[in-house]
Amino acid sequence: MEVVNKYVSLKHHVDGHPSESDFELATTPLQPAPGSGEVIVKNLFLSIDPYQLNRMKRYSSSHTAITAASKIEPGQARVAIDAYGVGKVVASGRAELEEGDVVAGLLGWEQYTVVRPGTVLMKVDAKDLPISYYASVLGEYSLHLHQIKEHKKDGPNLMTTATGPSGLTAFAGFYDVCKPKKGEKVFVSAASGSVGSLVGQYAKLSGCYVVGCAGSKQKVDLLKRKLGFDDAFNYKEEADLKSALRRYFPEGIDIYFDNVGAAMLEAAVANMNSFGRVAVCGAISEYTNAGKRAAPDLMDVIYKRITLRGFLALDYLHLHEQFSAATSDHLRHGRMISLEDVSVGIESVPTAFVGLFRGDNVGKKLVRVGELEGAEL
Amino acid sequence: MEVVNKYVSLKHHVDGHPSESDFELATTPLQPAPGSGEVIVKNLFLSIDPYQLNRMKRYSSSHTAITAASKIEPGQARVAIDAYGVGKVVASGRAELEEGDVVAGLLGWEQYTVVRPGTVLMKVDAKDLPISYYASVLGEYSLHLHQIKEHKKDGPNLMTTATGPSGLTAFAGFYDVCKPKKGEKVFVSAASGSVGSLVGQYAKLSGCYVVGCAGSKQKVDLLKRKLGFDDAFNYKEEADLKSALRRYFPEGIDIYFDNVGAAMLEAAVANMNSFGRVAVCGAISEYTNAGKRAAPDLMDVIYKRITLRGFLALDYLHLHEQFSAATSDHLRHGRMISLEDVSVGIESVPTAFVGLFRGDNVGKKLVRVGELEGAEL
Repeated sequence: MEVVNKYVSLKHHVDGHPSESDFELATTPLQPAPGSGEVIVKNLFLSIDPYQLNRMKRYSSSHTAITAASKIEPGQARVAIDAYGVGKVVASGRAELEEGDVVAGLLGWEQYTVVRPGTVLMKVDAKDLPISYYASVLGEYSLHLHQIKEHKKDGPNLMTTATGPSGLTAFAGFYDVCKPKKGEKVFVSAASGSVGSLVGQYAKLSGCYVVGCAGSKQKVDLLKRKLGFDDAFNYKEEADLKSALRRYFPEGIDIYFDNVGAAMLEAAVANMNSFGRVAVCGAISEYTNAGKRAAPDLMDVIYKRITLRGFLALDYLHLHEQFSAATSDHLRHGRMISLEDVSVGIESVPTAFVGLFRGDNVGKKLVRVGELEGAEL
Repeated sequence: MEVVNKYVSLKHHVDGHPSESDFELATTPLQPAPGSGEVIVKNLFLSIDPYQLNRMKRYSSSHTAITAASKIEPGQARVAIDAYGVGKVVASGRAELEEGDVVAGLLGWEQYTVVRPGTVLMKVDAKDLPISYYASVLGEYSLHLHQIKEHKKDGPNLMTTATGPSGLTAFAGFYDVCKPKKGEKVFVSAASGSVGSLVGQYAKLSGCYVVGCAGSKQKVDLLKRKLGFDDAFNYKEEADLKSALRRYFPEGIDIYFDNVGAAMLEAAVANMNSFGRVAVCGAISEYTNAGKRAAPDLMDVIYKRITLRGFLALDYLHLHEQFSAATSDHLRHGRMISLEDVSVGIESVPTAFVGLFRGDNVGKKLVRVGELEGAEL
């Protein structure tokens, strides 16, 4: 029995803000008869992440080194854009997987993915937590470095693996990069986003004072009422970010978890205490506008001995078990909440992605493209 | 016998580049009869450092916290600008010091300094190395934190103590902040300056590949021929710093020791390898122009996991002994050179200082204002 696979591919490189017209929906027939070692997965939840935009850009030579291996070439290969997700095995050419198994790994923006040999698929035991969690907060780095190298001959695929699993990103970034101490003052930007919402909750569980910023009243309320932030504000209502932060942190900021870059990073550095730490996790406001760059005052960086550190969850695979055990436990006991924003149907992928850069999403953006027992969507 | 003390004071706040007319030479009679606990020092070598400019600015409220304790208020007190130096005790109200002792510590841009109780003076045993070294490469943090607090009631005097001793700054910044490994590629800006010239030499002694940049052919030659840099270039001859660094570091930069900030920092970050480290030591090109700020690409910082860290030698007093023993030994055995640029006479202090921001100095800038056995100058 042949099925028809609907998929999303890139029509052309993206400059600046992405739009729905950058993408194309197409169909291709699929034989659920896997070749040697292949696994055919019916996708359930697909992860929609801002970093994918960086793979869609036309890069200048200076960027080649970090993006060559993972950039998406439109037209060159009419295939789905690869992305993290959770699905159900419908046919397996691997001994360790059988039909009906729920798996997580590098799938694609499509209804069905043919997973090649060498690409890791993790079996998900979703008995006591929702399946969607395994595409969001509990996502795993299924591709270890040497396996990525096999998968793409030209080197590790940094972009693909860069920011997929928001949980490990938040956990490693907060605990290892920020090294929080009880009572410290923590500022989180894009705080209702996939990573920010988790960082704020880890910070509260660590006894820190936490303020987040977001882009709407609804999000601000959610941070304060549902996620337990000590305070929150709508950055769009602040004419002067520097004085806004001075108001919210009269005693200064010890840790800034940066998801946005640009003017907010400058304002945070200006308000930091001595020995402050900035985890540079993302720069979403710079992704769509290369000219809008953060220029923090180096006088502050020097005299206040501030550390700014970029990081990728990729380098923290050794923390995965610790992260996963602690976080699952927090989720099960209601000490943490996984904020998910789910659209339905493969056709909604382009809008879901474009919406990330308009701040449409509240929490981790997912698209549900199939039901566990039922049809593709 | 009364002497006349010539001193340099600040006429008004400095905006942008300093000029000789910002300073005033004045004289005041001095009784070499010290009060209780006071020591009268005839100054020999005075240290001339860029950070002093930051104390002379008119600060906005956002800077108050880090500079309030040490800013220089022109007119308010008609006294010499305090500065690190080496001198000879001419009268002592302290039991542990006697006439003729050579001491190093916080003195002033003047011929004689009355050192108050609570200010530390270190006895210098200058038998086998020139006395000037104790005002430059071997300068000590004579003011420990608690003593600074006593000395100025309103908190630690960060600005005063920030960057005085170039030796400990170079040593701690290179070894602790940059954590070099043998074979790594090191880039140093302002490489013929007081700190840069030492960092380059430490890097060579650690088995690194070192390239420096400076602002004249004479300095470039000196870096390559006298200080043992593997390569060096004149940044003023490079239209595109990014491609210049790509030429000098075809395999990328592992460590950037930043003394200048602005465009050079951006170019270095663009050329860094994964896990690169930037020691943010100074930002001389930003000190005179607050609008000229470095805006490194955060995409590079994130994907290449770059750390940028501001630091002050102040936090590394515990390394002083190790630094001092190792460095004195290197100097004695000719494995390191102390580059000094000495002007003569108290009248030359303003020009010496202003020249720092024109790149006039080659190595550590000192002014000799007295002879060990002879007159004040």
